[in-house]
Amino acid sequence: MTITILFFWLSLAGTAVFAVSGALQALRNDMDIVGVSFIACVTGVGGGTMRDLLLGATPVAWVNDPTDIIVCVTFAGLTVVANKQIIGRRLDLLLWADAVGMALFAVLGAAKAQQYGAHPLTVILFGAMSATFGGIVRDVICNEIPVLFRKEIYITAALIGGVTLLLLPVGLDDAFKLSIAVVVSFTVRACSIVYGWSLPKYG
Amino acid sequence: MTITILFFWLSLAGTAVFAVSGALQALRNDMDIVGVSFIACVTGVGGGTMRDLLLGATPVAWVNDPTDIIVCVTFAGLTVVANKQIIGRRLDLLLWADAVGMALFAVLGAAKAQQYGAHPLTVILFGAMSATFGGIVRDVICNEIPVLFRKEIYITAALIGGVTLLLLPVGLDDAFKLSIAVVVSFTVRACSIVYGWSLPKYG
Amino acid sequence: MTITILFFWLSLAGTAVFAVSGALQALRNDMDIVGVSFIACVTGVGGGTMRDLLLGATPVAWVNDPTDIIVCVTFAGLTVVANKQIIGRRLDLLLWADAVGMALFAVLGAAKAQQYGAHPLTVILFGAMSATFGGIVRDVICNEIPVLFRKEIYITAALIGGVTLLLLPVGLDDAFKLSIAVVVSFTVRACSIVYGWSLPKYG
Repeated sequence: MTITILFFWLSLAGTAVFAVSGALQALRNDMDIVGVSFIACVTGVGGGTMRDLLLGATPVAWVNDPTDIIVCVTFAGLTVVANKQIIGRRLDLLLWADAVGMALFAVLGAAKAQQYGAHPLTVILFGAMSATFGGIVRDVICNEIPVLFRKEIYITAALIGGVTLLLLPVGLDDAFKLSIAVVVSFTVRACSIVYGWSLPKYG
Repeated sequence: MTITILFFWLSLAGTAVFAVSGALQALRNDMDIVGVSFIACVTGVGGGTMRDLLLGATPVAWVNDPTDIIVCVTFAGLTVVANKQIIGRRLDLLLWADAVGMALFAVLGAAKAQQYGAHPLTVILFGAMSATFGGIVRDVICNEIPVLFRKEIYITAALIGGVTLLLLPVGLDDAFKLSIAVVVSFTVRACSIVYGWSLPKYG
Repeated sequence: MTITILFFWLSLAGTAVFAVSGALQALRNDMDIVGVSFIACVTGVGGGTMRDLLLGATPVAWVNDPTDIIVCVTFAGLTVVANKQIIGRRLDLLLWADAVGMALFAVLGAAKAQQYGAHPLTVILFGAMSATFGGIVRDVICNEIPVLFRKEIYITAALIGGVTLLLLPVGLDDAFKLSIAVVVSFTVRACSIVYGWSLPKYG
């Protein structure tokens, strides 16, 4: 599998789970199906769009290729269909979908910045921005306290994804490196959710 | 009238009414005249700016041609002058100015994406994004619940504008198609405001 | 000192004080050190990034040159270290750091738009947008009422910076003009904070 195809699938997976997280947030805000789809799209493509804007990679991908939009709308629809079954667990599911999307976009964002020859520090920050932007927009539009502000580790998990990608030996297979970094980043976030991990406070 | 000139005037009209909606919101937040003008500018040019950024059409139009900015500041001034007369009806007027701007930008955004050869699904979404972005920024900066979240149909009306534009026969005159699409989109939103139309709820 | 070097240092100074203001806001929101650094980065580079996106100057500067990011993280760290000493005066310090950054970015943003041959009205607005965007994002993400909404003069001070730059005689040394404009803009804002200056209200 070439790196381009791997990027494509990881990005699609990240888009899908972020779309689900957006749809869940919109459902919690009692929006209608069109509002749910809209928030799903904005959340799903938000992080990648911000990344491409900053890199100057315009028009952004989904202008000419609507795959991401179709994925977002489809997953928004599936979320709406499942609404009755999951109604008591929506916030929980949102947190987990968000965690998977965060890990995927953190590593993809870092990898894409690396391809543009960005400085390592920028690579890591880019990952964290791609990973958090969609969720920030979702929460700001929906008037929620951004998930960033929860006590548990969040941005740190995104940064760790980028750092892992940078630290893995150059010789390794790219697909393997990406996968490891995603798993590490997700594991850190998952443990934070389950065990309430947080950074030690200062002062 | 060529299509370029029509675009110009429709866009100017959309900018003006969105500027008015921004000025009204800022007045409701008790801002001074400079704050009112600033929010008017951000609301008036916000949707078009986001659209141009995503398409890679930079520098965005108003950098070199300040017409839009002059329009925004002028209409902000007029709104301030009329403030005493309209003080009890500001929220109402805001909703209607917003509705007109929404319909105009939904159709213009869709038409512009079409010119860039975007996929039909993207064309429709682009319309909806252009139509809603200025208002979202206005409401988020002013700490209001975004107009998107009102129970009545909003994004749906914007989408219908783009869909109408796409469905009208290719042979028709462009100006005619644009006008029809704007009227349809505005009518749907107007009926939602007047009759409280909303989409049926699921589950 | 060439104008390029002057731009570089003024921009770095603006980035640093905005980063401090972001770090202070994040500390007030009880975020951990990574969150503090992240908000510091977004606040520090936000205004300049928005300016470059609108001008089409992409990839934005800090993608290839991480100086700004390093400055933001460093000043975030210093702010965290000083947290215990300043805990009762954080909001005050935030206001002053924000005022310095506002004056610097208002003038720099105006100057950069001028270099792109923008219309005088756009030059002034660009200054105001560069000056306020980082702070708006900081306050919106942190769920605070934006500093824009305080009763005292704020955007007006930013506009005055741009106007001063435009009105100073062409013959003057560029470094001198920039410095004067920054001092004027800061002085207006400082007086507003100290003496509670505000614009007269209408009707």
